[in-house]
Amino acid sequence: MKHIISATVTNKSGVLARITGLFSARGFNIDSLAVGETEHPELSRMTIVVDGDDAQLEQVRKQLGKIIDVIKVTDISSEEHVERDFMLIKVNIPPDKRSEIIEIVDIFRGKIIDVGRKDMIIEISGPEDRIEAIINLVRPYGIKEIARTGGIAMKRGAK
Amino acid sequence: MKHIISATVTNKSGVLARITGLFSARGFNIDSLAVGETEHPELSRMTIVVDGDDAQLEQVRKQLGKIIDVIKVTDISSEEHVERDFMLIKVNIPPDKRSEIIEIVDIFRGKIIDVGRKDMIIEISGPEDRIEAIINLVRPYGIKEIARTGGIAMKRGAK
Repeated sequence: MKHIISATVTNKSGVLARITGLFSARGFNIDSLAVGETEHPELSRMTIVVDGDDAQLEQVRKQLGKIIDVIKVTDISSEEHVERDFMLIKVNIPPDKRSEIIEIVDIFRGKIIDVGRKDMIIEISGPEDRIEAIINLVRPYGIKEIARTGGIAMKRGAK
Repeated sequence: MKHIISATVTNKSGVLARITGLFSARGFNIDSLAVGETEHPELSRMTIVVDGDDAQLEQVRKQLGKIIDVIKVTDISSEEHVERDFMLIKVNIPPDKRSEIIEIVDIFRGKIIDVGRKDMIIEISGPEDRIEAIINLVRPYGIKEIARTGGIAMKRGAK
């Protein structure tokens, strides 16, 4: 099963290496990882998407919780949550296909953030399936480059 | 100086730990890291944002290039590039402030992706300064949670 682990950690050299090491020591391959700043300059928040056995992953989660620099760790996938991915994608633009591509970008509420002679860079966010859908739609024009962040997630508010 | 390192790596357990270990062994603190899938299922792309001495970082870049599982590594910051950040932010919604908050989200072309009784989750992408600006604008209402991906970047196309 796919799990989304969210961890608040102190923003120190070595913490990231220690955490990723813990996953690899147990043979888990991390599908995606995003780590960025929080409201507190001394803290970072990591989102780790990993596929694996529930019981084994629960062990990893517990071990993470024991690391002094890990303030909080939750498996968001077990709660009501929203998950979003983000991507930059550089696509070929054959001159006669330009308007077709722009149309696709508009439908997906993406943004064109760079236009070169032969290619453009599109910025797009959304649920994973939306990201996959736009990749499939622009593939026929030729994809030059993809940079994805992998998912970040958050527990929904009480209704 | 701030550097944006982009690395294409094989999608194997342990590679991420090895790379982050290389930075921490040299005392570099990674500001943000994003790793996600590419067009090729066996490859991942990592974007690492790190602040540090140019010469020392060039050493790390070279060492990264020597790891078998690292296919390609570039310091994008030395070229013409676009850089984008992504964030989910959960904000308090005092009943009389709801329309004010919605207005801010619209101005920044963000999306409201969850509304609870007391809070909402906003999705926003853009250059780092835009992300910082919206954080500052919603702070007075009360920020409950932030999840950021950190930057991903791509070389601009030839003009």
